[in-house]
Amino acid sequence: MTRMNRQIHLVSRPDGEARADNFRLVEAPLPELADGQVRVRHHYLSLDPYMRGRMDAGRSYAQPQPLDAVMIGGTVGVVEDSRHPGFAAGDAVVGIGGWQEFATVDAAQPGALRKVDASRIPLSAYLGAVGMPGVTAWVGLTRICQPKEGETVAVSAASGAVGSAVGQLAKARGCRVVGFAGGADKCAYVREELGFDACLDYKALPDAKALGAALAEAAPKGIDGYFENVGGRILDAVMLRMNDFGRIAMCGMIAGYDGEPIPMAYPALILRSRLTVRGFIVSEHLADWPAALAELGQRVADGSLRYRETVAEGLEQAPEAFLGLLKGRNFGKQLVKLV
Amino acid sequence: MTRMNRQIHLVSRPDGEARADNFRLVEAPLPELADGQVRVRHHYLSLDPYMRGRMDAGRSYAQPQPLDAVMIGGTVGVVEDSRHPGFAAGDAVVGIGGWQEFATVDAAQPGALRKVDASRIPLSAYLGAVGMPGVTAWVGLTRICQPKEGETVAVSAASGAVGSAVGQLAKARGCRVVGFAGGADKCAYVREELGFDACLDYKALPDAKALGAALAEAAPKGIDGYFENVGGRILDAVMLRMNDFGRIAMCGMIAGYDGEPIPMAYPALILRSRLTVRGFIVSEHLADWPAALAELGQRVADGSLRYRETVAEGLEQAPEAFLGLLKGRNFGKQLVKLV
Repeated sequence: MTRMNRQIHLVSRPDGEARADNFRLVEAPLPELADGQVRVRHHYLSLDPYMRGRMDAGRSYAQPQPLDAVMIGGTVGVVEDSRHPGFAAGDAVVGIGGWQEFATVDAAQPGALRKVDASRIPLSAYLGAVGMPGVTAWVGLTRICQPKEGETVAVSAASGAVGSAVGQLAKARGCRVVGFAGGADKCAYVREELGFDACLDYKALPDAKALGAALAEAAPKGIDGYFENVGGRILDAVMLRMNDFGRIAMCGMIAGYDGEPIPMAYPALILRSRLTVRGFIVSEHLADWPAALAELGQRVADGSLRYRETVAEGLEQAPEAFLGLLKGRNFGKQLVKLV
Repeated sequence: MTRMNRQIHLVSRPDGEARADNFRLVEAPLPELADGQVRVRHHYLSLDPYMRGRMDAGRSYAQPQPLDAVMIGGTVGVVEDSRHPGFAAGDAVVGIGGWQEFATVDAAQPGALRKVDASRIPLSAYLGAVGMPGVTAWVGLTRICQPKEGETVAVSAASGAVGSAVGQLAKARGCRVVGFAGGADKCAYVREELGFDACLDYKALPDAKALGAALAEAAPKGIDGYFENVGGRILDAVMLRMNDFGRIAMCGMIAGYDGEPIPMAYPALILRSRLTVRGFIVSEHLADWPAALAELGQRVADGSLRYRETVAEGLEQAPEAFLGLLKGRNFGKQLVKLV
């Protein structure tokens, strides 16, 4: 009997906000393994904000997600069967297997599959702190924010997979670190468990004046590096506090993914404060991955880099979990657990 | 009898738009020359947009212009009398003498006075193409926009002292060059006399759609480097046309000098197109001045760098000429001729 594989397809593009009915659960037969292919059983799927951009047909930095095909995304799992000499059943692997229970991978394709050590580091961490989000934090912080000891670094979405790593890596470099997060519980976690010097609950600071005053208190010497995950009024408030020659890494604009563009209120500050504002995508910094993964892996293994996960159970939960991520309902890295 | 010196003082700070009554013409006695001092008779005063920022008390990149003191600004003139061994009567000099007929300068102060060659290059050019505006163009273009042969460079205020140099220097580096200017006459000059490939009259393109369509035609391969002198809707239109990994040098935000901040409509494009946006002030790039002045001087002398001047006659015309500059009424470098 043919084995079946359950998958989530994108079946329509959002008109404004993404909705559950943009996705559909589909069953498809698993193909026979061809030479050079590896069958991976997915243990975890990664859900990430960038996926929202790919749901649109319009211009983005990535190809749009094709319709009526498996949603693309990072995965971690275990090799079940292999016709490639580099992989054997039982190997723990990270790949880009998409929202499905099994992936059939041409393992010779560069970057398609990477063996990982599941003995020192939990498998799920390879989708978070020791995976794409962690490397994103590392690249944006070290290459763009370029923090020096004694400087102040700020980061939005501070309890998230990227933001939490940004702050802890900046602390390890001798910086004062200020986070932004939505809600008292997330802020308490950021301060107490992640060790940030301050964390501002933007939901409790609804107007620009209150946000600015709180930020002035949290960053009394101004801000030298800012890692931007959100956009909108937090960016505006930070720009007003940036020191001369400050660096801003533009990594995510979650606030803007759902349709309406969100303006930057004070672009003239880029000139006045001689800021450098730079957008980047981690997949375009492949040369940095080895150094980044080495530090991140070491820090997760020795406990100096902490993280939190929100885990949805079962493939069918992926769309709702993803929509929740876009609304900030997750707490730390959003995963879907399949096994 | 004591000789008198006529000066323009700033006597009040603007409340919104700058006005003529923020300035006052004052007569003051010329002091005796002390040891190490040089008396310069000013031939030309430079009027520049950055002066508007200094009129405010608030945070700017420069110290505010003090009240009841001579308006600070670049000057070119001829030494009338000297008690410093490095200068003699008859020397042509560039300085920061301010809006007055004579300056009494401590010539030993670094950067206070620089002798220039008035035989190959007209004196007034040292305030424009071979002065601060020219070096501004050179630094922003070569250090931030970093144009490569075959790329497309855009520049706003293209008929102005900075913009005209940006475009001609980019043409000399093998780029396609697109300018923006206000009015058909300025655009014709930019295309026909300065040799830009295209120039868009933003006044004739009042809505975003028309501006975007014209820009798409003028820059069919997108824009790789943008030199920003204005801000506002031109910046928005350019950002929508920027190629991946494009560079934007933020030099002026004339549109924003008079009070109201002007937002950037699509900051998410910084991420999507992985742009680098960087503000700079030419006085913080002193190491670049010699190389910049060498190229600029050579190009003015050999005729490959052209420029235009708007010259107001007489010190008392300085305030009105300056207000006209802020409204874009000048055509090329705005000067005040005193001799």
